[in-house]
Amino acid sequence: MNTDEQNEEIPSLGTLALHPDRLFPPDAGVRAIARRLYASVSDLPIISPHGHTDPRWFATNKNFSDPAALFVAPDHYVFRMLYSQGVPLERLGIRRRDGEPVEADPRKIWRLFAEHFHLFRGTPTRMWIEQSLHDTFSVRERLTAESADRIYDQVNDLLARPAFRPRALFERFNIDVIATTDAALDDLSHHDAIRQSGWSGRVVPTYRPDAVVDPSRKGFAADVEAFNAIASAPMTWAGYLEAHRSRRHYFKRRGATASDHGHPTARTANLDRVAAEQLFSRVLRPDVSTEDAELFRALLLTEMARMSLDDGLVMQLHPGSFRNHNSALFSAFGPDIGADIPTPTDYVHALKPLLDELGNDPRLTLILFTLDETAYSRELAPLAGHYPALRLGPAWWFFDSPDGMRRFRELTTETAGFYNTVGFNDDTRAYLSIPARHDMARRCDCSFLANRVAEHRLDEAEAQVLAADLAHGLAKRSYRL
Amino acid sequence: MNTDEQNEEIPSLGTLALHPDRLFPPDAGVRAIARRLYASVSDLPIISPHGHTDPRWFATNKNFSDPAALFVAPDHYVFRMLYSQGVPLERLGIRRRDGEPVEADPRKIWRLFAEHFHLFRGTPTRMWIEQSLHDTFSVRERLTAESADRIYDQVNDLLARPAFRPRALFERFNIDVIATTDAALDDLSHHDAIRQSGWSGRVVPTYRPDAVVDPSRKGFAADVEAFNAIASAPMTWAGYLEAHRSRRHYFKRRGATASDHGHPTARTANLDRVAAEQLFSRVLRPDVSTEDAELFRALLLTEMARMSLDDGLVMQLHPGSFRNHNSALFSAFGPDIGADIPTPTDYVHALKPLLDELGNDPRLTLILFTLDETAYSRELAPLAGHYPALRLGPAWWFFDSPDGMRRFRELTTETAGFYNTVGFNDDTRAYLSIPARHDMARRCDCSFLANRVAEHRLDEAEAQVLAADLAHGLAKRSYRL
Amino acid sequence: MNTDEQNEEIPSLGTLALHPDRLFPPDAGVRAIARRLYASVSDLPIISPHGHTDPRWFATNKNFSDPAALFVAPDHYVFRMLYSQGVPLERLGIRRRDGEPVEADPRKIWRLFAEHFHLFRGTPTRMWIEQSLHDTFSVRERLTAESADRIYDQVNDLLARPAFRPRALFERFNIDVIATTDAALDDLSHHDAIRQSGWSGRVVPTYRPDAVVDPSRKGFAADVEAFNAIASAPMTWAGYLEAHRSRRHYFKRRGATASDHGHPTARTANLDRVAAEQLFSRVLRPDVSTEDAELFRALLLTEMARMSLDDGLVMQLHPGSFRNHNSALFSAFGPDIGADIPTPTDYVHALKPLLDELGNDPRLTLILFTLDETAYSRELAPLAGHYPALRLGPAWWFFDSPDGMRRFRELTTETAGFYNTVGFNDDTRAYLSIPARHDMARRCDCSFLANRVAEHRLDEAEAQVLAADLAHGLAKRSYRL
Repeated sequence: MNTDEQNEEIPSLGTLALHPDRLFPPDAGVRAIARRLYASVSDLPIISPHGHTDPRWFATNKNFSDPAALFVAPDHYVFRMLYSQGVPLERLGIRRRDGEPVEADPRKIWRLFAEHFHLFRGTPTRMWIEQSLHDTFSVRERLTAESADRIYDQVNDLLARPAFRPRALFERFNIDVIATTDAALDDLSHHDAIRQSGWSGRVVPTYRPDAVVDPSRKGFAADVEAFNAIASAPMTWAGYLEAHRSRRHYFKRRGATASDHGHPTARTANLDRVAAEQLFSRVLRPDVSTEDAELFRALLLTEMARMSLDDGLVMQLHPGSFRNHNSALFSAFGPDIGADIPTPTDYVHALKPLLDELGNDPRLTLILFTLDETAYSRELAPLAGHYPALRLGPAWWFFDSPDGMRRFRELTTETAGFYNTVGFNDDTRAYLSIPARHDMARRCDCSFLANRVAEHRLDEAEAQVLAADLAHGLAKRSYRL
Repeated sequence: MNTDEQNEEIPSLGTLALHPDRLFPPDAGVRAIARRLYASVSDLPIISPHGHTDPRWFATNKNFSDPAALFVAPDHYVFRMLYSQGVPLERLGIRRRDGEPVEADPRKIWRLFAEHFHLFRGTPTRMWIEQSLHDTFSVRERLTAESADRIYDQVNDLLARPAFRPRALFERFNIDVIATTDAALDDLSHHDAIRQSGWSGRVVPTYRPDAVVDPSRKGFAADVEAFNAIASAPMTWAGYLEAHRSRRHYFKRRGATASDHGHPTARTANLDRVAAEQLFSRVLRPDVSTEDAELFRALLLTEMARMSLDDGLVMQLHPGSFRNHNSALFSAFGPDIGADIPTPTDYVHALKPLLDELGNDPRLTLILFTLDETAYSRELAPLAGHYPALRLGPAWWFFDSPDGMRRFRELTTETAGFYNTVGFNDDTRAYLSIPARHDMARRCDCSFLANRVAEHRLDEAEAQVLAADLAHGLAKRSYRL
Repeated sequence: MNTDEQNEEIPSLGTLALHPDRLFPPDAGVRAIARRLYASVSDLPIISPHGHTDPRWFATNKNFSDPAALFVAPDHYVFRMLYSQGVPLERLGIRRRDGEPVEADPRKIWRLFAEHFHLFRGTPTRMWIEQSLHDTFSVRERLTAESADRIYDQVNDLLARPAFRPRALFERFNIDVIATTDAALDDLSHHDAIRQSGWSGRVVPTYRPDAVVDPSRKGFAADVEAFNAIASAPMTWAGYLEAHRSRRHYFKRRGATASDHGHPTARTANLDRVAAEQLFSRVLRPDVSTEDAELFRALLLTEMARMSLDDGLVMQLHPGSFRNHNSALFSAFGPDIGADIPTPTDYVHALKPLLDELGNDPRLTLILFTLDETAYSRELAPLAGHYPALRLGPAWWFFDSPDGMRRFRELTTETAGFYNTVGFNDDTRAYLSIPARHDMARRCDCSFLANRVAEHRLDEAEAQVLAADLAHGLAKRSYRL
């Protein structure tokens, strides 16, 4: 890195500028390689094969209401950090289950966010939000208590314009395709509306059957009843499987190419028909045991993999989160308020039943994610570097970050290579952050590749091929988009 | 890094010089940033909120006896390494329980240490000792078998002078405040003596009740009896809690701002009064079960947290060490002779009972340490990045090292930020190493920040704010000093 | 790193060149240090104290048959990657147990390998194979579908020449000594033949008794019977131990300096004679329980360590692999076809029985390996940094790679130093890759040291001493070669 360059670029705390070399290695020679690699992929369209944007946005194409509703309320990365430093969720406008009043003035919420924005120093959230403010809303000063109102006004003003409606942003963000995540019971009416509107943007659903797969959830039996009813299937194990087939077909006809499964563990099971039937009837009872619930989820992963062989849906497994760890907050606010904590996750024993049955079939694609980084080099890379059916999902959730991505590549590449991974996905409901997230991933992958080129472990020509694959090709091919 | 500069600085094996840029990143541009950051914090006074210096030193202010007693005998980092390469502890003057004679000549011990000093290449111990010899004792040659006697004489000579008494060194080391660690049964007479002496140095106690909290320790029941007696409390559960309150108050009046808890695991428990009373009576019996002992320790963590809410003492938890792993050495020499080995440590389930009760209260500060680095990104950063009561202690013990500190920051910052951490603490009984340890921490944190500035993930102006917080502000505020 | 230099060296995808600075840090100053360190060790003879070359090669000294038999069939790193991307093992010529035909044309196998060679980008396998093709076979173009036939012809032609016979390569590779791995029942006739041939190459056996130590193996009782018979020992526990002593002596007389133990876990046990006798009779029954099998393996580790004290054989323990994870492939092809997957491995509790008995004896050397990198800093470095009998083996198997080696050093050095490690071993049956593997290890260790010199954590003069120890001295001394 050049010292003079560095001397020029120290901004005061108040200025917001995005350095063109951000996230690149400091060494001048390596940075030059990273720049070249990045230049070759920075304009590729975004493939977003796994995320949580709301299809309603694209169906109705209404303007977003205000900056707080856009940047604070939907983003558990944001409010968990503020909460950790003593800011009550009520003051951030998070709705309580009991209907008690919470802060309703978006400007006040925004100010509180701005006062605490320094907490995000060193986090990817800071970089995503700043890039979004800078690139999408032309903000040129850092968010602080002092600048909060000015930035609020500027963003709020722009949000009201036609160019800031969901579809216009989709196009501006250069999104090729975005997948939403949809419950098995969802009628996908928003997806239908999008397709019927004549708009060219490609928004596809993803089959997420957790509510009818996890017997420990409240209302499970009723949900299964409704689920089977949609497909006119009887309340038997065979009928239940038929309902899955039917709903998967329904999703697939609307563009889905994948299913998604969020489980406490990676456990899989393979039961014969009789054992499965008996288990099915047991898990519908209100007093379902913990072990039966786990076994049913395990069984369903194998059944879903079997159906994937038939209908070609790519399968995603996200295990290892202790959901709603904070009991008091869960009571007061419900799920998804930032109290999900990772746990140690076993893959090598857990996946064996499924792999024994289907792991050698290259027609199946099962993409594995983890919140337990110890599994990268010990279990995930060796498994994905052997079984034809397995691929590794990108650094996920807490690890969707520059250091997290670097660790992912360092801990998986030497065993599994690049081609047993599937590119980046943003996994977010923070719509505005999507370009920044993909940009961060591209910068980080190009930096990783640049270091390997500089150490003569790759040629630059093949690093360019790889950069394009990591930014675009692998996601497109792996998710069959 | 500049090649010419490098060519100039290759010393022979015998010279001892401390390079002003040590521990800074090699790249010239990044190093320049690290230098500027370090320059802004290198002279800040030392806050040492957790350590094991002996208050008697400051109370009596007597000269230390000899170099071996200062550098070898109290430092388990030192003698464990020599022991691992076949040097018997007896030859290092470590006292045996059976009173069998051990080496008593400090010069012979020093020579043995010097002969094996090359074993410490690449370890932080080497850097601490060399910085101490260089800065405090003006030694300018590396410790070897050949130089051993000369260095012994030089250090020994200086140790006899007034300027090398504990209080003079305290001032020379620029220590603002140092916390000792004191048993719950300690009368803190040395602390009283310090305060009554009129000396201005701030030496405060820390409440460490392990001996009266861990029923698996020899003499536990007798210790509890003595403990309750000090506070004139009856031998009941209520009396026992009252004794804790009383002793905490006693410590607090003498300057304590924190309690400290070294447990085999992080397990916490929350029992109702009746269950707690029954457990209390069971753990006083000589045949206490392993499970009851663990449950009692778990319960006490929650009780201590409750008391912290009342009296404001900051709480520290150091779990995960398998103490006295080496049975033969434990029999011969007792505890703390370097045979404590880390074990896998669960936090996410273990802490839940305490957190369910008190984790949402921002008035509580519970600082978590670990010897299991896998917990940093998987459990500790997500927990501390969510619960208002939690903070992360610095890289501890085996990880109080340049690479250990880097991993700590890399694995926690992106999820928990900087402000859910508490700065550095030296955790040492090696008094002479304290300036070197804090200096190492400052250099490492500045290097970490400099890399982030060079990668444009932080502005240099905010990195300077952070550098001061990591070096001084966070420890002062978190420990309420 | 110099940008101009970088601009010059971008080759097209087709050229194969080995950059003299490969694997060195990009920064020009650090790279200069790495170069100097590497220059001082690059020509040191190879000590290969643990590997899987076939002693028959050196006994018969016949030419290798063809490129596929040399580069593909024996290398599970190679065919596991191809298999993970859907290439059936049959097409790679891997023999099936049922005798069904597999691809027999080595040229076709080579072409298939070449078509998929891009999968190895970023893996050490790529670097080993390319260095071998380049240095040993003078290949100057990258392996692709297009170049496959030309390279096949070139390698095939050279393989037929006298200079490419095993012994000539041994000398050309500058191998000082190579240890093979040999079953306890092996008569070591090839080793005898080598010694009787008058050839000066030093090829020594290693005592690997797993087949007569692991009761869960098929044919265990028969193997033990044959084992005891060789030593004319009765089928009793005492006779079984006597057979081990006898076989160890037999191996030692043929040059062995070490034993090697591949166990599912690191568990050790210490039983009295009666309990051991009873266990011995139980494990010989066909219905041996899982727990008895594990206990017997555990007991044998302690017994082997006891024998090591008597006969001086260095002991190696490789735990933590879930062997033959892929049931279908195991049925079809047998063991060692790339479906061994690491598992979490405990050392701190597992080794305690052995360490309690023998860990304080510096005459014992027990070298520990791991496939669970979390144990490096948490358990292995603290254990090896304390117990005189313990040493750390190098980064192993999946971690025999540039990033794997860096992590090994970063996670062990600060606690255990360099001198509780034992240098590099290649652990390979891919004979041609041996020079490349040792070269990679030397480059990586020199890079690690160079970074520490550049950060002024080591002097360059002592880094040179260390570089030689890591490349040569530690392996030679630790394995008593």
